[in-house]
Amino acid sequence: MGGRQSKRERRLYGNASGNSSPYIQRYVGRIGLLDDAGLSLIEKNADRILDQIGMDFRDDPETLDIFSQAGCRVSGERVRFEPGFCREVIQNSAPQQFTQYARNRARSVEIGGNNSLFCPSFGSPFVHDMDRGRRYSTCEDFENLTRLHYMLDSVHHSGGVVCEPVDLPVSERHLFMAKTHLKLSDKPFMGAVTARERAADTVEMVRIVFGEKFVDENCCLYSVVNTNAPLVLDATMLEALKVYAKANQAIVVSPFVLGGAMSPVSVAATLAQVLAEVLAGLCLVQLIRPGAPAVFGTFFSPISLQSGATTFGTPEGMQFQMCARSLADRLGVPLHSVGALTASKVPDAQAAYESSTQLIGSFMAGTHFIIHATGCLESLLTVGYEKVIMDADRCAMLAAFADKVDLSDEAQAWDAFEEVEPGHHFLEAGHTQRNFETAFFQSSVADNKSFEQWQAEGSSWQHQRANQTWKKMLNEYHPPPIESDIAEALDDFVLRRLKEIRNQ
Amino acid sequence: MGGRQSKRERRLYGNASGNSSPYIQRYVGRIGLLDDAGLSLIEKNADRILDQIGMDFRDDPETLDIFSQAGCRVSGERVRFEPGFCREVIQNSAPQQFTQYARNRARSVEIGGNNSLFCPSFGSPFVHDMDRGRRYSTCEDFENLTRLHYMLDSVHHSGGVVCEPVDLPVSERHLFMAKTHLKLSDKPFMGAVTARERAADTVEMVRIVFGEKFVDENCCLYSVVNTNAPLVLDATMLEALKVYAKANQAIVVSPFVLGGAMSPVSVAATLAQVLAEVLAGLCLVQLIRPGAPAVFGTFFSPISLQSGATTFGTPEGMQFQMCARSLADRLGVPLHSVGALTASKVPDAQAAYESSTQLIGSFMAGTHFIIHATGCLESLLTVGYEKVIMDADRCAMLAAFADKVDLSDEAQAWDAFEEVEPGHHFLEAGHTQRNFETAFFQSSVADNKSFEQWQAEGSSWQHQRANQTWKKMLNEYHPPPIESDIAEALDDFVLRRLKEIRNQ
Repeated sequence: MGGRQSKRERRLYGNASGNSSPYIQRYVGRIGLLDDAGLSLIEKNADRILDQIGMDFRDDPETLDIFSQAGCRVSGERVRFEPGFCREVIQNSAPQQFTQYARNRARSVEIGGNNSLFCPSFGSPFVHDMDRGRRYSTCEDFENLTRLHYMLDSVHHSGGVVCEPVDLPVSERHLFMAKTHLKLSDKPFMGAVTARERAADTVEMVRIVFGEKFVDENCCLYSVVNTNAPLVLDATMLEALKVYAKANQAIVVSPFVLGGAMSPVSVAATLAQVLAEVLAGLCLVQLIRPGAPAVFGTFFSPISLQSGATTFGTPEGMQFQMCARSLADRLGVPLHSVGALTASKVPDAQAAYESSTQLIGSFMAGTHFIIHATGCLESLLTVGYEKVIMDADRCAMLAAFADKVDLSDEAQAWDAFEEVEPGHHFLEAGHTQRNFETAFFQSSVADNKSFEQWQAEGSSWQHQRANQTWKKMLNEYHPPPIESDIAEALDDFVLRRLKEIRNQ
Repeated sequence: MGGRQSKRERRLYGNASGNSSPYIQRYVGRIGLLDDAGLSLIEKNADRILDQIGMDFRDDPETLDIFSQAGCRVSGERVRFEPGFCREVIQNSAPQQFTQYARNRARSVEIGGNNSLFCPSFGSPFVHDMDRGRRYSTCEDFENLTRLHYMLDSVHHSGGVVCEPVDLPVSERHLFMAKTHLKLSDKPFMGAVTARERAADTVEMVRIVFGEKFVDENCCLYSVVNTNAPLVLDATMLEALKVYAKANQAIVVSPFVLGGAMSPVSVAATLAQVLAEVLAGLCLVQLIRPGAPAVFGTFFSPISLQSGATTFGTPEGMQFQMCARSLADRLGVPLHSVGALTASKVPDAQAAYESSTQLIGSFMAGTHFIIHATGCLESLLTVGYEKVIMDADRCAMLAAFADKVDLSDEAQAWDAFEEVEPGHHFLEAGHTQRNFETAFFQSSVADNKSFEQWQAEGSSWQHQRANQTWKKMLNEYHPPPIESDIAEALDDFVLRRLKEIRNQ
């Protein structure tokens, strides 16, 4: 009952052409920028970095030991790699494409190949809405954002830290977040990476939902490990990486790079550095558990070298993503990269211009997993309620764009040309009447009315309409069904772990 | 003196990486959607439309006579064409690429090939700014918009009817508009198409500036002829077409299509109809003057079949442009299509999302001449001052994106990797210091500051900053130099023609 009802209501928030696929099968190509010689040059430079400079793996003797046993040159915490070594290890066992299972199997996603998917923004300590402005985010915000993304058909993933629940102690947040994703949504979600035991707790929780054997054999969690660019992986990230890799769960190694500060001030050099860090990280994943899903991640923001500020919606950002997809293809793993990022503090034109540049650029690059596709404000310090609604509308637009251009007899519409004389209109033609309801994409937050009608209805700006939309959605939300024994087992696990954590 | 000063000031309004090329040489690819079989199907359907249904050329016996003499089947005002006929005529003589000369030859543009350019929006009867709101546009607005576009390095063309100077009689506007483009700017511009004598006046004015022989041998005017879709060209447009074709000036035949009303409600059928109309129109141009520049134009807005409203930033719009570029390539002529269109009435997030979708989509399609790249609001009924500034910033971004990914030794930055240890930052590295000023694109209207600093400075939204920018620019405007005898000759011509028009 709840399920059927919520499905009917969710349909209100998709686009009119009714695209509710669990991920996007792309019938569009992509733009690559470098030829084979250019890509080989970047790869050669990455190999040179790993060979001559090396990468630091900090405070983690186990990792140093793994690399040492594999024949890499370990000196202190620095590991150096023979040219081609990491690539060979990865290509021997990492899958080119894999399925991340959702609690509701109809929402499982394909990561890699000719597919793309959109995921909410990640990690903001603040939220913003037009009623209350900017404030620290709370558990209530985390739940609200999870509900909204559950209802938005154009967003395929429930994400991870959709905002920081800062009203909880750090040590307890991961339990709350995993439980919320599992109970308020039925889409796939992300694992915690802030400590070994938190990663382990998340794995335990998906085992409760999916079963131990299923989890060991299939990807049910997708987790992002950031390097400390340049060329460092720290113990916290390494411990999370090891937990998930051992459990055969997907690991994204994603260098977080503010270009000019954490990498040299050029696209070509940043690509080489990022590739080097990804190679070393994914090689470690494959050495721990050959065949575990391993994903090439990127986060690149050129900084303003006048002010030190991060910038988004930039030409370098688009160039970087398009080159990164080609590098990921040659390595044979999926690409994870960023979507609708902006430095704007409010849901204004800057937010929309920058976000759509990043989102469309990432999509045209052919990025497989597009994180931060909805909600980002203030360079990810804030997630905006209105921004989620507006960005999701653009995700729906891109999903429809990626669909086939229909060349069927019906789409060729010869009967319409025969029926309508030159100079006359097609509105009443039989072909139009047969197809008008599903023919064209309809935005859920655009106002296309006449000036006069728009003015008579209050001269609204888009963020004002989006404000109405998210409130209406939250009012109409019903949680997806969940088996009561699984819900109870999750609650029991969380209560037990909370007790243990509080007694430590 | 004026020239040097204005050049220095203009530089303020380009982007920081200093791209002030007169047009964009593209080092990026483009996205095509249909394979050969799909494109051939569209072409076959266009041929079938021209053969079996035909196109009406209204109130213009001369045009019917030209087609009749060329062997086409003329019946009343309906002309039917043998399959392949128009294509053969066009391919026999139309140039694949051509130069439109600007009064300042350093600003001449290449149309076609691996090049793209941005042009202001066209034809709005209203203007909008944040101080005065929406109002009928005037000569003062026309002059202001011409000044702004002259100063914006990312906009390569001065356009045509950058807004309607509604305070002038219709019969006199073309003289004012051409004079304004020629005196307040030195970029290439568009010819009037509203009547035969107005087109002829525009040709006379460029003859004064460029010389009669030069104009006969080179393109100095670029003019857009819209069909009355479906499948009609009327006398007004035909007369303008004939004047410019006879004068060897560029003609764009651009079906203006609201999909579902003026074409069938599908992308595939609309492509076939648009191709049919373009084939017939460009064939006429080549029959009149073989070799005259002829351009494949498109304007496609899917209408909401619930409300009848035009919609922009749509998936169908992007698909349409990407297919149209492939069709234009196979025909062997440049593609002219739309840029930053929106149905929003104000410079809000909707305006920015829709505009950047259309603009980036058109750019990724590889459109050669991108009209309506700056300023559009309210489905082209209004041009916004703030919107011009904000859109031009995105044009600058795309120009930088289209540039080569630099793979030089300096860009590979090996010395930076040798200098900076893992975990340290690159801000003070020699490579960074050598390159930081020009490394990354800087938006002129984005606010990338911290929340606290942004708040301390007044919590501005982007349209508020853009409002300051256009006022500052108009304050600092200096006209480009013009030879005094040419300026006088233009003034004399306009005065003489005004007298004649008023005495008619």
